[in-house]
Amino acid sequence: MNMYDIIIKKRDGHRNSDEELEFLITEYVKGNIPDYQISAWLMSVYFSGMEDAEAAKLTMLMASSGDMMDLSPIQGAKVDKHSSGGVGDKTTLILGPLVASCGLKVGKMSGRGLGHTGGTLDKLESIPGFQINISTDKFFDIVNDTGLAVVGQTGNLAPADKKFYALRDVTATVDSIPLIAGSIMSKKLAAGNDGIVLDVKCGKGAFMQNLKDAETLAKLMVEIGKHNGRNMSAVISNMDQPLGKKVGNSLEVEESIDTLRGNGPEDLTQLCIELGSEMLSLGNIGKDPEDRKRMLRENLNNGKALEKFREMIKAQGGDDKVVDDFSIMGKAKSIFDVKITKDGFVKGIDALSIGKAAMHLGAGRAKKEDDIDPVVGIELLKKTSDKIASGDVIAKIYHNQSELSQDIIDQILNAYNITSDNVEKPKLIYNIVR
Amino acid sequence: MNMYDIIIKKRDGHRNSDEELEFLITEYVKGNIPDYQISAWLMSVYFSGMEDAEAAKLTMLMASSGDMMDLSPIQGAKVDKHSSGGVGDKTTLILGPLVASCGLKVGKMSGRGLGHTGGTLDKLESIPGFQINISTDKFFDIVNDTGLAVVGQTGNLAPADKKFYALRDVTATVDSIPLIAGSIMSKKLAAGNDGIVLDVKCGKGAFMQNLKDAETLAKLMVEIGKHNGRNMSAVISNMDQPLGKKVGNSLEVEESIDTLRGNGPEDLTQLCIELGSEMLSLGNIGKDPEDRKRMLRENLNNGKALEKFREMIKAQGGDDKVVDDFSIMGKAKSIFDVKITKDGFVKGIDALSIGKAAMHLGAGRAKKEDDIDPVVGIELLKKTSDKIASGDVIAKIYHNQSELSQDIIDQILNAYNITSDNVEKPKLIYNIVR
Repeated sequence: MNMYDIIIKKRDGHRNSDEELEFLITEYVKGNIPDYQISAWLMSVYFSGMEDAEAAKLTMLMASSGDMMDLSPIQGAKVDKHSSGGVGDKTTLILGPLVASCGLKVGKMSGRGLGHTGGTLDKLESIPGFQINISTDKFFDIVNDTGLAVVGQTGNLAPADKKFYALRDVTATVDSIPLIAGSIMSKKLAAGNDGIVLDVKCGKGAFMQNLKDAETLAKLMVEIGKHNGRNMSAVISNMDQPLGKKVGNSLEVEESIDTLRGNGPEDLTQLCIELGSEMLSLGNIGKDPEDRKRMLRENLNNGKALEKFREMIKAQGGDDKVVDDFSIMGKAKSIFDVKITKDGFVKGIDALSIGKAAMHLGAGRAKKEDDIDPVVGIELLKKTSDKIASGDVIAKIYHNQSELSQDIIDQILNAYNITSDNVEKPKLIYNIVR
Repeated sequence: MNMYDIIIKKRDGHRNSDEELEFLITEYVKGNIPDYQISAWLMSVYFSGMEDAEAAKLTMLMASSGDMMDLSPIQGAKVDKHSSGGVGDKTTLILGPLVASCGLKVGKMSGRGLGHTGGTLDKLESIPGFQINISTDKFFDIVNDTGLAVVGQTGNLAPADKKFYALRDVTATVDSIPLIAGSIMSKKLAAGNDGIVLDVKCGKGAFMQNLKDAETLAKLMVEIGKHNGRNMSAVISNMDQPLGKKVGNSLEVEESIDTLRGNGPEDLTQLCIELGSEMLSLGNIGKDPEDRKRMLRENLNNGKALEKFREMIKAQGGDDKVVDDFSIMGKAKSIFDVKITKDGFVKGIDALSIGKAAMHLGAGRAKKEDDIDPVVGIELLKKTSDKIASGDVIAKIYHNQSELSQDIIDQILNAYNITSDNVEKPKLIYNIVR
């Protein structure tokens, strides 16, 4: 077997055999295949695509190139949720306690965020005392006791994917659907859950900008999981505007707590109910979608979901007073009101611009080494379809700058697309792939 | 400008600008662009193709990455011929003297052969005393005096192409028509002739296996030459069987002399007349194709072409007695008669198998360092459409082995495709592209 023949086969539109993919991954990780052959193969995959079973094999090989987590010490069904990421996406903070309050086991290992805003771990660390570095044994104990723990990723997950990704990043082979699916799913397979619910974002603020691509990606990821014995579901959701109203780490904890109390923004709540219903379904909880959604809404309204969040905070060393008093997370020194000078309706809000503005305030990292300021961020008072009048405050900027730069204010103003015509509420859930 | 954007542009089917190609070639030759980015770009070219003007620019950049020959000391029109190579192809040995005898200037720089059989230089070196290493000044003098010299390539021609080729060879990006055309034409542009006639082989024994691909390649090479100010013509010829009857270095010199005397095999003679007519046309000699072909045939029959060959041999230090006495080139120790045991007609002769058999006898090089045995080779007594009867000698093997291996005999027998039905004479010239 040699790499040359593997490239030719893929270049000519044929399927690479299991043995060929095994050779490719094993020898590349060992350093026995040069980058220039892998990049030619990656570009062939970009053009020729991959069959589902082929992508599934590649993904499992990338997963098993490193540590494979064994979650068997956790009793019961273990279901993970993965989001392709988006501005204002704090669903993990809400979904974890919410589905755990319905009886599901959630042992979540998260990564740090790079880019617009912080990741789940950064958000949780806004809570005083909250520990994300927890030994594996203690992690299992907490999940078995309370049903829920969210910790930092340990171990060497999918090193083949890391090596692939670094090469794809410099050879224009990132945006290939089988390679994207393989990259995401290799880490999910390695993380060891029985069931995986994918939140695939679609729209201007997401990696997949159109519905067709988002569906193709979702279907392939679902197939990759199924081929490798996992229970799968993917929800395709709108990311044409930020999710919820608050963007920034402690601000998103606040909004999550509000949502867990039943007082969250409509879009965020709806998405959590949809994703939660899928998670419960994969964990065999509830009779049917209606039953599961009823259960989830109940636990938001009766305080059980919030109670679960409190338990998690305590179990991971955090100060659970945060649930009743946001101020213990600290506060930004200044709040700036962004006022609009037009009348009309909000047609859309460019999520990417809002994310970048938040990053510039200090809520996200431009480079891995950057520190995050947990209290800064943006609150969007007006969302798509809302009516506005000149002089309205459409957004608040929470910042720690001696003088707020006009650029950031303009970035937020420009993110708002205003029209004189009535605007319908945008559809939030496009499709569910199982 | 950066390589990443250049890859994306080509990947997405757009034309790379002149500046982008200049950056790519210059920085790659300097070692400032890594192989893995170039191989991703090459694979994108494989899939996305190139516009004619784009390929022309790339080709000239590869040419000018090294020495550009200045042939201006040679008076008159300078026309080169390039063949994509084939088994039994000794056209340069015949065409050089033939068109020089009609008044054209032929200053040819040739390479050594690698693969099935020797190259033009190896064939000429079968002639005792023949020198291919000649100073540039003496080369110009000989061409001005006699109209003809064939010498070894000097200088550093198209180093960018060498670097590209080495990478294409291991990344499955060899068989891309713009890259093939660029590779061939970069060396031709660097060689400095005003006119270039291309002999593009098509068929089982050639790189281009079907007529459509051969025509596409021929058209693109013609366009590349024209874009860069050269007079161009391409003849697409059949390579479904070896050209002429003799394969092997001194054997091909014999057949060339026979042909220059007007006694050559029909296919070889016809191809030389076609290519010669194109060369004369680019050199503005003769009124029209009929006039040129008449002139060429005359000079084969009246001894002028052979006389020119004799002049060239003398001018380059060779023993011109070879023209009248082939034995001064030495002889193979043994000749083996390959007999057929079937009746019927020759439907085809696999040129590649014949070439490989000749190489195993010692007529060609498997590796650059290998020595060539000038006297060994194969003579094909029967060609496509010939009638055969069981017991006929269809080929002779000229060898220096103590015991001829049965494998080589079988290889030759198996190369012959025999049918019971009448077979028409195959078409030799498919098309001419100007």
